[in-house]
Amino acid sequence: MTGNRQWILRERPQGAVDARHLELRRRGRPVPGAGEVLVRNLYLLVPPAMRLWMNAQDSYVPAQPLGETMMGITLGIVEASNDPALSVGTYVNGMGGCQEWFTAPAAQLMPLAPHPGVPLAAYRSVLDVQGLTAWAGLHEVCRPQPGQTLVVTAAAGSVGSLVCQLGTQFGLNVVGIAGGADKCRWLREDCGIAAVIDYKAEDVAARLDALCPQGIDMVFENVGGPVLDLLLERINDRARIALCGMVASYNGGGTQSAQALMRLVTKAARLEGFLVRDYFHRYAEVAAQLQALMLAGRLQYRIDILEGLEQLPEALDRLFHGRNLGVQLLRLSAERGA
Amino acid sequence: MTGNRQWILRERPQGAVDARHLELRRRGRPVPGAGEVLVRNLYLLVPPAMRLWMNAQDSYVPAQPLGETMMGITLGIVEASNDPALSVGTYVNGMGGCQEWFTAPAAQLMPLAPHPGVPLAAYRSVLDVQGLTAWAGLHEVCRPQPGQTLVVTAAAGSVGSLVCQLGTQFGLNVVGIAGGADKCRWLREDCGIAAVIDYKAEDVAARLDALCPQGIDMVFENVGGPVLDLLLERINDRARIALCGMVASYNGGGTQSAQALMRLVTKAARLEGFLVRDYFHRYAEVAAQLQALMLAGRLQYRIDILEGLEQLPEALDRLFHGRNLGVQLLRLSAERGA
Repeated sequence: MTGNRQWILRERPQGAVDARHLELRRRGRPVPGAGEVLVRNLYLLVPPAMRLWMNAQDSYVPAQPLGETMMGITLGIVEASNDPALSVGTYVNGMGGCQEWFTAPAAQLMPLAPHPGVPLAAYRSVLDVQGLTAWAGLHEVCRPQPGQTLVVTAAAGSVGSLVCQLGTQFGLNVVGIAGGADKCRWLREDCGIAAVIDYKAEDVAARLDALCPQGIDMVFENVGGPVLDLLLERINDRARIALCGMVASYNGGGTQSAQALMRLVTKAARLEGFLVRDYFHRYAEVAAQLQALMLAGRLQYRIDILEGLEQLPEALDRLFHGRNLGVQLLRLSAERGA
Repeated sequence: MTGNRQWILRERPQGAVDARHLELRRRGRPVPGAGEVLVRNLYLLVPPAMRLWMNAQDSYVPAQPLGETMMGITLGIVEASNDPALSVGTYVNGMGGCQEWFTAPAAQLMPLAPHPGVPLAAYRSVLDVQGLTAWAGLHEVCRPQPGQTLVVTAAAGSVGSLVCQLGTQFGLNVVGIAGGADKCRWLREDCGIAAVIDYKAEDVAARLDALCPQGIDMVFENVGGPVLDLLLERINDRARIALCGMVASYNGGGTQSAQALMRLVTKAARLEGFLVRDYFHRYAEVAAQLQALMLAGRLQYRIDILEGLEQLPEALDRLFHGRNLGVQLLRLSAERGA
């Protein structure tokens, strides 16, 4: 085996992304140059933002070029090294692309020291971007005070479920909104989030009124769309809405009510976008905190792993139809052995 | 003359407000109780927010009750006083209502010491709520750095025109958006704002691209609607959008593009509502600054005065059709003499 399979972006999706827009091509396995290492990718994170990267307009990263290997957030293992600082067998996080192998200067990779009690996949999900995103949105953007009310959308998602649990531990009145009985049950029974709304089965407005009798002080927003309008209509003075994503709009279209947004004025509230990269300087500290909670059994999570690089279109489809249960990852090869 | 004419809210408007929704009724002139003063209203401010007050839902103030005198922001003169601290003949700002006379405890009123070189009407407009709003939105919400680009909507309006001038004096690259040749000419020729876009006559997107080659760092937003979407699409990293109002939505309806709002995430930007009442502690300081600029001829403004309380529906209509030239006031009686 000397090949390397890669997904390239063949065509920019206008609406939903599907197999048409992507092409799986075969190339030779790359050879590391001076100071570079060769990495075998083990896990590829499939975040909703991947859809944004495919647009012609730059997002928080430059637009994915057509005909080139799709950008991808990976965890891999060093299989060959031309840099003595990074030895063969080391696990590394990096921007390894939607492919099986890649080469990079050692300095561009983050070596990992996984704890034996924690699954490796967690280091490219819960203990990584997702965890830091949850922490930053909650503490740095929402700036919570114990006793306040926080509503979390996509609450059973990779970030949302962490926000719910961290918020509850912080002493907030947390209300999670998720779609489907399974997700809601998991939040209630495993994550200990008492107040959960199933937006697919319940009257969200009525349930919000019941669960937030004092109004809403903070929102951790992943979705956008009509639910966000309902939340805005219920915000308190000086509410903070941490805008992590608006996945409802990633496939195009979508509007928010201007009258709902006008509540930002009448409540002197703020809607604030944030990017996890602005908090990377807190990464080590936050990951250590989260790992300790996880080892103590105080942080529940679900990682949804599909097998094989070829499953990328399926993974994206699951994500945009809410069929994923937790962080969506692809396993590209076995943790040990090529 | 012992009467008092008052506007009451007869019916809540669903869309635009007009004469149907209001009723002008005649009552007896009120008599001040112990510790109260009797005030003759001289000027009534007619801000776009008056439309918001008429909705059933509370805004930043409780909803205007039906059948009661419309809330109103007034400048008047004390005509009788039962409080030695506030003597007859003193000009006062207060919430005097949409009526000719009112009584209030002296402590609820703010006495004025008008400068002879400044029109009295300016003390219930430019040197008051409008000025403080402009200052607070610019300095406290936008937090500008000299050299950055600020776009102001409703730029020829009472607040917008002040923001444009204060921003220019602060060293910002200010772009004003207004509707109509007269407003744009006034901004250019009288206010010295070189970069002005006439949204009624020009291609706003193309003009923004030409006038903001470095992107948009700040927006002082009064309007909302499609222009706000265009602005969001052009914001820079960490942009600040001071949301002062969304007058396009006050008559109901209106949407914002979710994809445009998503730029808040990808640019880690914030959309922040604010209320002037949170800055009243800076009032005296800011009004003094603005008065000094005005006396030095460095602050242009226009006050659009209609004569007589009966003109309220016309004033609201002018406002919502952009026919007002500057702050909309009604003059309820002569500055001197009953």
